[in-house]
Order: sequence, then C-alpha cells, then structure tokens
Amino acid sequence: MVQNVVPQEDEIAKLFPNVFGQPSATIVPSSSAKSGWDSSLKIGVVLSGGQAPGGHNVISGIFDYLQARAKGSTMYGFKGGPAGIMNCKYVELSTDFIYPYRNQGGFDMICSGRDKIETPEQFKQAQETAKKLDLDGIVVIGGDDSNTNACLLAENFRGNNLKTRVIGCPKTIDGDLKCKEVPTSFGFDTACKIFAEMIGNVMIDARSTGKYYHFVRLMGRAASHITLECALQTHPNITIIGEEVAAQKQTLKNVTDYITDIICKRAELGYNYGVILIPEGLIDFIPEVQQLIAELNEILAHDTVDEAGTWKKKLRSQSQQLFDFLPQAIQEQLLLERDPHGNVQVARIETEKMLIQMVETELESRKIAGAYKHRFQGQSHFFGYEGRCGLPSNFDSNYCYSLGYAAGALLHSGKTGLISSVGNLNAPVEEWTVGGTALTSLMDVERRHGKFKPVIKKAMVELEGAPFKKFASVRDEWAIKNRYVSPGPLQFSGPTANDINHTLMLELEAQA
Amino acid sequence: MVQNVVPQEDEIAKLFPNVFGQPSATIVPSSSAKSGWDSSLKIGVVLSGGQAPGGHNVISGIFDYLQARAKGSTMYGFKGGPAGIMNCKYVELSTDFIYPYRNQGGFDMICSGRDKIETPEQFKQAQETAKKLDLDGIVVIGGDDSNTNACLLAENFRGNNLKTRVIGCPKTIDGDLKCKEVPTSFGFDTACKIFAEMIGNVMIDARSTGKYYHFVRLMGRAASHITLECALQTHPNITIIGEEVAAQKQTLKNVTDYITDIICKRAELGYNYGVILIPEGLIDFIPEVQQLIAELNEILAHDTVDEAGTWKKKLRSQSQQLFDFLPQAIQEQLLLERDPHGNVQVARIETEKMLIQMVETELESRKIAGAYKHRFQGQSHFFGYEGRCGLPSNFDSNYCYSLGYAAGALLHSGKTGLISSVGNLNAPVEEWTVGGTALTSLMDVERRHGKFKPVIKKAMVELEGAPFKKFASVRDEWAIKNRYVSPGPLQFSGPTANDINHTLMLELEAQA
Repeated sequence: MVQNVVPQEDEIAKLFPNVFGQPSATIVPSSSAKSGWDSSLKIGVVLSGGQAPGGHNVISGIFDYLQARAKGSTMYGFKGGPAGIMNCKYVELSTDFIYPYRNQGGFDMICSGRDKIETPEQFKQAQETAKKLDLDGIVVIGGDDSNTNACLLAENFRGNNLKTRVIGCPKTIDGDLKCKEVPTSFGFDTACKIFAEMIGNVMIDARSTGKYYHFVRLMGRAASHITLECALQTHPNITIIGEEVAAQKQTLKNVTDYITDIICKRAELGYNYGVILIPEGLIDFIPEVQQLIAELNEILAHDTVDEAGTWKKKLRSQSQQLFDFLPQAIQEQLLLERDPHGNVQVARIETEKMLIQMVETELESRKIAGAYKHRFQGQSHFFGYEGRCGLPSNFDSNYCYSLGYAAGALLHSGKTGLISSVGNLNAPVEEWTVGGTALTSLMDVERRHGKFKPVIKKAMVELEGAPFKKFASVRDEWAIKNRYVSPGPLQFSGPTANDINHTLMLELEAQA
Repeated sequence: MVQNVVPQEDEIAKLFPNVFGQPSATIVPSSSAKSGWDSSLKIGVVLSGGQAPGGHNVISGIFDYLQARAKGSTMYGFKGGPAGIMNCKYVELSTDFIYPYRNQGGFDMICSGRDKIETPEQFKQAQETAKKLDLDGIVVIGGDDSNTNACLLAENFRGNNLKTRVIGCPKTIDGDLKCKEVPTSFGFDTACKIFAEMIGNVMIDARSTGKYYHFVRLMGRAASHITLECALQTHPNITIIGEEVAAQKQTLKNVTDYITDIICKRAELGYNYGVILIPEGLIDFIPEVQQLIAELNEILAHDTVDEAGTWKKKLRSQSQQLFDFLPQAIQEQLLLERDPHGNVQVARIETEKMLIQMVETELESRKIAGAYKHRFQGQSHFFGYEGRCGLPSNFDSNYCYSLGYAAGALLHSGKTGLISSVGNLNAPVEEWTVGGTALTSLMDVERRHGKFKPVIKKAMVELEGAPFKKFASVRDEWAIKNRYVSPGPLQFSGPTANDINHTLMLELEAQA
C-alpha cells in the first residue's frame, strides 16, 4: 500500500529512452488504407492477470480491424498469459476460432497467467518469439503491472532494433487503472453491476426478514472503487472506503465503533437489519494492522507460539492491545496460517466475519451498559469470482471492442509503447473517439532496493473526486433511512441496457 | 429427514371433517359475475416463511381479481406473517400501496414471519381477527408447513361456523412443495436462474484460471431440487444430490472419495480445476452423521468436553471413527457451537469448506502413495440469500399473478381448504389453466408423541423422476469433459426471457 513513489520525469525518460515523450495519438476515420502502412501484419495478443469481462471482445476488435484494414494479416493468441510469449506457446486465431467467444465473459479463449517478463533472460525469450513469428506487434491486455511490463517490452524491442511494436489495453475489474485519457479499465462496469445485483437482492431480503445485518466484502484488494460504485448503485446503510480509513488514520476499533454506532441508532428507529459493504483490502488500509502483521512476521520467523504466551510479550504495546482486541478465530488464523515464506496470510482473513464478531462483542458490552437492548444477527458474504467472468455489459462489450480496434490501428500506424484509449464515453457509441496514450505518461518511478523501478500508479479512490463526494453527501441519510435500490440482473436490451456506471459518469461530468 | 409417515386417508378425514373430500376446482372464463356470489368481499392475505421471488405478484393478482370481479371489495395485508393474523396487525391494501411492488422481488410489502397458528388459544385469536375484520377469506402464501396450517385454519373456521374461507398458495424456492396438480412452487424458477448465473460465471472463471476447484453450496436444507436444477442449467463437473446419498446409504468418506476420484481423473487429463455443487442439506442425508450428532447431543447434555477426551469414549465406535475423520475446525464447531437447547448447530456447518478440507486430506494421502501428483486449490461459495429476493423471472411473475388471481376467484366462489393451482405451464401463458386442489389431498399423517399430526409431505428429488434421470445420464460426461454452460443474467426481454426451468419442463413432458 504505502508506495515510495518518486514522480520524476527525468528518471522515466532515462528508463525509456526509446519510447519516452510520445504525444497521444488520435485515430480518425478514413475510407482507404494509409499509404506507407503495411498492407498486412503479424500480430500477437496476450491476456495477463485476473479475468475481467470483455477480454474476448478486445481480441475480436483487433481481429476485425486486421480483417477490414490489413487484409492477409495473421493473428496469434499467446496461451496462458505472458508465459505464452516467453515459451512461444500460441494458437493462430481465425474467424471460426474467435466466433463462439464474441461478447462472452471469461478469458478462456486463450487463458491468462500472472507471469512477468522481467529478467534479461526473459526479455531474450520474448525477443526470440517476436523474431520467430516475425511479429509486427503485440497487444498486452492487462492491469497496471502488465501495462508497465508492456512498456518495458516496447522499450526493449525498440532498443534492440526489433520491428515488433507493443500496445497495452487497460483491464481490471478493480477500476484502479485509469487517468484522464484512459477514463476506465474494462470489466469494472460489468463486475460492479453483477455485485450490485447480488447486493440489491440481499437488501430486499434484509428488509423483508427484518432481522439480519448482511456484511458484504467485495473483491478489490488495492483500491475501493468497486465498493464505492456498488454503494452508489444500491445505497447500503454503511460503506467502508479503505482510502478514507487510511486518510483518517483510523484504527480497527474506530471502524468497529462507526458500524456499531449506526446499528444502535437504527435499532432505536426500529430497524434491526441492514447492509454493510466492505472492500476486500480494508485491513491493508489500517496502519496499526500493518504494524501488527509486520511484528508477527518478525517474531514468528524466530519463535514458536508457546502456550504461556512469551512470544506475545515481544509485541509493542499498541500491537498487543490490537491483538487482544481481535476475535479468537482471527488470532488463530494470524498465528497458524502462514504462506511458504512464513508470513501471515492477510488475504485469507475474512474481514466480513471478523467485523461481525467485533461488532457483536461491542454490542454485547453496550448491552451490559444499558445502551443497546436489541438483537443483532450478522450474515457474511464475499462477492468476487462471481463478477470476474460474467457476460460483459453492453458498455464493456462496446468499450472492449473499441479498445481492440484502436490497438489494431495503432500497431498498423507504427506506434509502440502506447495504451489504447477510448474517449467521449458519455456520448452514444457512434460518437466515441479512439486513440492511444503514451504508457510512460502514466508512470512514476519507485525506489526499490536502491534501484529506480517504473510503475503505473494505481488510481485510488480520490476523497476529493466526484464519486466519493457524491457518496459522502448522502451516506448519513442512507445509514438511517432505507434508500435501498435493487438494480436487478444486468439487461442486454431494454431501457437500462446501455447505462454506464456511476463512477465513470460522475468523473466524466466533473471533467466536462 | 426420517419421517414417520402413515398415509391413512381415514386419519386425514378424521382430522379435517369439514374440508376433507373436496374435488379439485377448475376456474373457467366468464364475462359477468356469477349469480349468487357476493358482489364484494373482505379478504386478508399473509406471507409466511422465507422469501421467494414473486410473492408480491400473488398479492397483486388477488387484488386485481377483486377490483375486476368483486368491485367494492376490501383487502388487508397481515403484517409480519401469521403473527399479524393473531395480533390483528394489518394494512389496508390500495392500488397506490401495491403499485411499487408489482413484479418486484422480496416480501417487503407486508413482510413475512415464521410463527404458526397452532394452539387452541392461537386459533381463537385468528377467529377474533376474522370476525373483527368481517373476513370472507384469507389467502396464506407459504410452504408445506404454512399450507398445512392454512388447511387447519380452514377446518377450524368452518368447524366454528365462521364464514371466513382459507386458500393456500405454493411458495418456496426449495421447490419441494409440489404434486401433480400443483406442478411447482413459486420462486424456484427465479432462485435457480440467479444461482445458475453465478455458477456459470464461476465456471468460466475456473476454466480461464485453470487452477481452482470451486465448491458451491446451494440453499435448500431439505430437498436437493435447487442443486439438481442448477446442474441441469450449468453442467458442473460434480453434483451431489442428497436424496441419492441417502438412498445409497453413503458415508461422508464415500462422498469424499467420489469427489476425489473425479479430481484425480481430471488431473490425468490435464484439468486441475472444476466446479462442484453441494446441496445445503447434504449432511442431513448421511445416516452416520445423523447418528454422530444424536450421540453428541446426548453426551454433551451431561458431560463437559475434557482435554483428556473421556467424553469421546462414550461415542459408538463408528461415530468415533467419523468424528476423527472430520477436519479439526468442524470437530470444534460440533463441540463448541450449541443452540440454546444445547444441541449441535448443524445448519451452521459450512459443508463446502468441510469437503474441501476432507478432499485435501485424501489427495495428500494419495500423493504420498504416488497416485496423485498435482496441485489442488479449493474455493468455497454459498449461494442463498442472493436468490431469495431477486426480481422474479417472467415465469414467476406470471405464475404468481395467476396463483393470486385464482385464489381470488376460489374465495369468491365460496371455496375453502384448497391450494391455488395453475396448470398447462408448458404452453404459452394465454393457455394456462387455473383452479384449486384440496389441501387434504396433499397430506399424510405423521405420528408424533402418540398423536396423529397432518403434514404436507415435502416432495423430494425422485431418483426415478425425469430430472434426476436426465442428470444421471450425462453426469459422467460432465465430470471428465467440460460441458460448462454459463446462462448469464436473467433477462426480461429477448429470446430466453420466457424460458422455464428444466425440472418443470422435464416433469411436465414426462406426465404428457
């Protein structure tokens, strides 16, 4: 979370001597092929990282561009992510091969993977594949890391005088890869709509039954965009935004008290039910939890956990207090479940269950103090995998197809080191604009082990941004009154079929 | 599960002297009100038990019938389930009040509850309400228990010379309230389609990622209809049907081995991923688990759990073996989490997580034996609350409206002790037929504490029925080959909008 970011243009220019400083490109309609452009191309495409609805349409868009504008072209799909480039594992894409995947979710056409092309040896392997297949270009479909990698590959190929160009495409359901020229990452729209359907259903259930508090944890480890967007779509009683928790340096006790206070207020109004949204990465935003985990990793690397608890005395007093505040099941998880490096597996912690137990304990003590007289029953949910591979919304289908078509055109025109970008997204699809933006313009450098490393900054929820401000202006009303909205299942036809998500709309409106 | 059912017509006749023996009623179109029928009616309606999509449309159907056919009628909605009848808590339903709930999910219009009208005192309260509101009829919308209760109420009112008639409506997402004349319960269609959307998404995710086995537990404690229907819609690799487990007297080890065998076979074919469906009530179907829990309840009522484990020696040897076979977390749950009566909380056991751990252990020992060489990673899901309150499918919207309209007509024609029924469901809506079926014809008697009690038998998955036979004929192929179907989100317009579920279609075809 805490990144040591040094925004230094000079450093970036040094890291990318061959691709730095490119202006943005805009693609304009023309009826014939440009003179000087290759008549046919050899293009590879790769899916990198976690699934996001619409990936298949990016591939379809590239393919259709080549069919329409560069007849006789060949297109390869690298299998299983970047490892497919390094091992030269690919499938040749044809009209028939692509057909059943058009407008479908998932990445199963060519599958994905999380490998990175990092070492000199790996770059060498990528060069060999590019030469062997005589590639004019590669399109990398991925998130912040994968697009950083795409830029390094573009730089490497150009620096080694390879003709192979590299174009990135912004993918991640988390919605944290974006900037002014790349207004959103694909998959975010669909995933949020799928989660919002489920949250809406649970809300109506809560109101009908009148006796459960549903704690819903939503996928998205780094930024809380998904949680914020789902809140804007459904109006839950309580929504925790990690970036706000971090900015206010809140403790776990603060978060618990915030939730408990609202539950008590609602009980006085006769509501003993509600819906609470929690971002998957919540505990990563809480400094004291980070501190505790760092200390635990340190202590448990040397000591064993003894019954007498001598290991515990090595914790600083604040960490000791926090540890004692945690529910027993979480304490055990922290002590027993370690990854192969011996570290605490933070990702395994079911934050929604943890919060239910902490709220239960807090309510219990308020009951004893006479400040709460009602009954609390928590139900936990985690929505994640359900949203990564859904059928893409009309927005994501169109957006992805456009990203792919643009990527094809950018490669055709000889560009490299750009990310495909589509603009004017709040207008009808016919009026969208396509182009490319220098990947280096999205970058910062980070100092790691004394070396500068380029990174595309994750776009976190901005507390001064339009989506958060909208949310902040209504959340107190949502807490007390029940303003639930149950959007229902994503539709592909009918009046709501072309709605785009609130986050994007609010951000575009704020820019206008 | 194991019911002491004595199907004795005579006993039922004795229990229901006033409403027994009624023929089924068919409602036929007429352009004018029947002579002799009351011109206006006073009708109450109540929602009983867990939510199911479409409940609001039943109420709308009754209301519209009264508006069209019995002008000047009054309709009351009892609030919070049967308790609303007993306490005479109600709201008068009007066009404006009902409007926002038409075609919407949830039971939040008048809410629901799980109380029953059982004791003489409670029947007395119900009579008082019926008299106070001068009710001509009450419609009880509920599952098997609630419809049994509706019939008892009909009998009680008639036996006490009250004019108030009672009509039931078949509600439950579990799909286990059905017979020849009541082909399905409402809500089942929608809930299965919502779960199938999520399962389909997870399947595509599994295939795209290639490294996870998703264990999906599906709501439905008693019968496994939801699991079977979701399997027919999505074609998972493994599906456990509780009724089959019970019929074959399988042990938990048998179930674990069945899953593990398929995982090993798939690994040989290069597939280290898959999707497994598990009915919520699985462990209720396994006799040895029932035995263990009964023994634990007995032992722990008297003894405490001592570290030395003397309590454990009181288990029979088979139960002791089973206990040792269970993962540690489940053992602790069985020992520590008790309900207020001191009983083990079976419903709290997360069967999907339990099976993941048992499969892990079994694979580990096969690895040691050299019979398995791959990597297994389980992901657990529980889909339940998400499906109970979704927007009703077109089928459930139409079906519920028809059930309500029929209930209105049945009451208007003086009927009591019937359940509203809609037939010819595999034809277009215009050709559906409506009528009523004697609730007593759905009943058996059960001997409890030496007394005969009437019960509507839960309709379990029939191993000789068309849906299970269809599934059984293809599951081996689904296990090894990946025949995944991802149906996507429920649509309200377009080519699939009026599809009805496989279970109902197969059963209707088999009857034809």
